[in-house]
Amino acid sequence: MTKVLHTKLSVKTAADVEVIDVTEMIRNWIRSEGFSDGILTVSSVHTTAGVTINEGESRLMEDIGMHLSKLVPKGAGYLHDKVDNNAHAHIAATLIGSSATLSVVSKSLGLGTWQRVLFVEFDGPRSRTIRCNFVGV
Amino acid sequence: MTKVLHTKLSVKTAADVEVIDVTEMIRNWIRSEGFSDGILTVSSVHTTAGVTINEGESRLMEDIGMHLSKLVPKGAGYLHDKVDNNAHAHIAATLIGSSATLSVVSKSLGLGTWQRVLFVEFDGPRSRTIRCNFVGV
Amino acid sequence: MTKVLHTKLSVKTAADVEVIDVTEMIRNWIRSEGFSDGILTVSSVHTTAGVTINEGESRLMEDIGMHLSKLVPKGAGYLHDKVDNNAHAHIAATLIGSSATLSVVSKSLGLGTWQRVLFVEFDGPRSRTIRCNFVGV
Repeated sequence: MTKVLHTKLSVKTAADVEVIDVTEMIRNWIRSEGFSDGILTVSSVHTTAGVTINEGESRLMEDIGMHLSKLVPKGAGYLHDKVDNNAHAHIAATLIGSSATLSVVSKSLGLGTWQRVLFVEFDGPRSRTIRCNFVGV
Repeated sequence: MTKVLHTKLSVKTAADVEVIDVTEMIRNWIRSEGFSDGILTVSSVHTTAGVTINEGESRLMEDIGMHLSKLVPKGAGYLHDKVDNNAHAHIAATLIGSSATLSVVSKSLGLGTWQRVLFVEFDGPRSRTIRCNFVGV
Repeated sequence: MTKVLHTKLSVKTAADVEVIDVTEMIRNWIRSEGFSDGILTVSSVHTTAGVTINEGESRLMEDIGMHLSKLVPKGAGYLHDKVDNNAHAHIAATLIGSSATLSVVSKSLGLGTWQRVLFVEFDGPRSRTIRCNFVGV
């Protein structure tokens, strides 16, 4: 029988720009629900934070945030800054992507050796929500 | 019983670079098919236009197009420009991504408060097609 | 009945930065398994290589690699370079994205006329693995 499940996870960011490894939270959800095989999406429900898959090495996580801030610098004459002053955070989130699509294979998260699920904050510190959805068996 | 559904939506872009909010078109499809819970993908079938999730504020939508054009400027010596003169549009589409993966929860699109589905044109004006796919119940 | 299938494909890259069209490998898998309709994810299991959808024109594929290397230049003072000297490859992979989400419609890959599935190497040459997952019927 097809299983369709969803949950929301909470994450608290502590800085303006910050990358947080959320892999274990997702593994806990898989374990607690006991589903076996399928596709799992991990999505930021925000427009100034995204989700990506990469290595969870602490200096690299800092590099990702810093380089994105370089590619999309704060206050570079954006029109939206007249509304909210955070256009850079929206655009950076769009480059990183709002979600990652993963697989679950034999009750395990289908990640490579160095892959981790990373939540990327561009307009913190804030309390943030991650939505996870699973379709499979 | 598992439902697997797909549809194509049409969008007309009016400028070279343009961001269009297509959220309501997707909500209409969910309503008309009556599916309840699952994963939904929204994909550009083109290689010079993409799909992303962000806020639908008009100035921000302009910023996204403008900043991508800055990161991938037109005519910057690309090899593909000898074929088509639109390499910048292809590369920008690759950065934005060709599709977004969403969820449907209790017959509603699983988006955060400010999240909208945005179609991003980089080589308009053109008539464009968006493909939507749903797997769930 | 719901089908949940996965496979691993192998790809050998020959250069530091290289874009490889892997569309036919994925079509072969669809044909060999005989599944009909659903959602299919194509993921790099690596953190210095990604997957995107764009045109498979050879000069454009070179442009994509070159422009990403311009946006995320090698050795630009990244903290992670003290660990591995390849931070640029990780960040570029994050911009391209680790996976693409596709559809299968009536036993065919749901791609537009010019769309191809591209594997993007940023830290080659290496032997690489692509993971494919299908949920549908």
